[in-house]
Order: sequence, then C-alpha cells, then structure tokens
Amino acid sequence: MVVKELEQSVKQYGQLGLKESNRGIVDAFNVAISMISAGESRLELIQPLGEGNVQNFLEKNGEGLHHIAFAVEDIEKKLSELSEAGVELIDKTPRDGFGGHKIAFIHPKEFSGVLVELVEE
Amino acid sequence: MVVKELEQSVKQYGQLGLKESNRGIVDAFNVAISMISAGESRLELIQPLGEGNVQNFLEKNGEGLHHIAFAVEDIEKKLSELSEAGVELIDKTPRDGFGGHKIAFIHPKEFSGVLVELVEE
Repeated sequence: MVVKELEQSVKQYGQLGLKESNRGIVDAFNVAISMISAGESRLELIQPLGEGNVQNFLEKNGEGLHHIAFAVEDIEKKLSELSEAGVELIDKTPRDGFGGHKIAFIHPKEFSGVLVELVEE
Repeated sequence: MVVKELEQSVKQYGQLGLKESNRGIVDAFNVAISMISAGESRLELIQPLGEGNVQNFLEKNGEGLHHIAFAVEDIEKKLSELSEAGVELIDKTPRDGFGGHKIAFIHPKEFSGVLVELVEE
C-alpha cells in the first residue's frame, strides 16, 4: 500500500491487532517502508520520501493498494521461466529491494491489471 | 482483484504455479468469484456479472486491486470493538459473502485509502 505517512498507517493496522515487524528506507525507490505481519503474509506500507514512481502514484491515485508480491526460492530461475513463456517483465534481472532481498516486477498486463512483484526469500 | 474474465486471470496466476481452489457466484454482489490459493492466503478474483459496485469499479478504474481481507474468529465482536473505538464501518452488522462466510467492510478512510474486509472463518 502507498501511504502518506507511515506512523499513522501503522497505528491504523494496530486497530486490527496487527503489528509492525520492521521499518527501513530503500534509497533506490526513494521510499520508507514499514512491514506489518499478518500470519505468514506481510503488508508493505510504502511512504514516498520525494520524487519517484511512488510519489507519482500517490499524486495521481491517492493512498491505496499498489502491488502484490509473492515469495520465490530462486528469482533468476523464475524470471527466466516466465520470460521463456512470453511473460512481459519490467525487471529482466533482479534488483535490490527492502531488507536486501532480490526483487523483480512483472508487467501488470500479465496479471489482469495487477502489478506483481517477486521476492527471493 | 476485479477482473474482466475469470478464466483468463486464473490462467495468468497459473504461470506462477498458483491454483484455483474454488469458484462460485455471490448473487448479493452480482459477481462470480474464483479463489486462488497462495500459501495460507487466498487471492480473490472477482468478475462482475452485471450492474453493481464491482461493475462500476471496473468501468471507472479498469482491472486491478480492489480490497484486502483479514480472517477473524468472531466478526460481531470485532465489529463491536472497532465501532466503540470510533472506526467507521461500512457494514455495522455482517452480511453473507462467498462460501457462506460472514463478512463486513470497513471504510477505506480508516486504513489509508484501502478498503478492508473482515471474514469470519
């Protein structure tokens, strides 16, 4: 989710009994991120820190859902398989995401308008 | 996720190795729904079958992310707690959702622009 201000959003999810597990900055995306644990899943709250894609999203759409992510064991292998199957990738090779994980985005046209991220765990 | 056509979207998630667990119609919302298993989480693909909120969403926004849902043990109790804490609910009492579960929606202003659903499991 793209949010205006992490602290406020973390409090909101606290109303459902959900707790922040970690927080940090990803310079490459110019964002601050808070991860909220929800069972084996995580909610990723993303606050733009200045110019970039996330700030553009916020200005255009307001706060809200931005993308979903799936854990994969071997991201290079998965990207290679998807590419061979003709799936349009935004990132043909992984880049560094939050927490030092390798990540890659797939074009939303491949998933009915939903931006999909793969995260190597 | 709101999608135009379930069959195509189910195939797309199949590219990630994710499989449909069940499918059905919810008359009250005028939609067909496909649930895709992803670990302990589920992706809910929602196709409008005619007039209604979901068709309006699709016409306005196109395909994409629509809401997130959390499982709760006792939905009446949770709604009562949230209401007492001043949280604005869309559904003050639960209604019937997919698979016969009791569900309720919370106003997106309470979660930084994200429409949140509670589902009694």
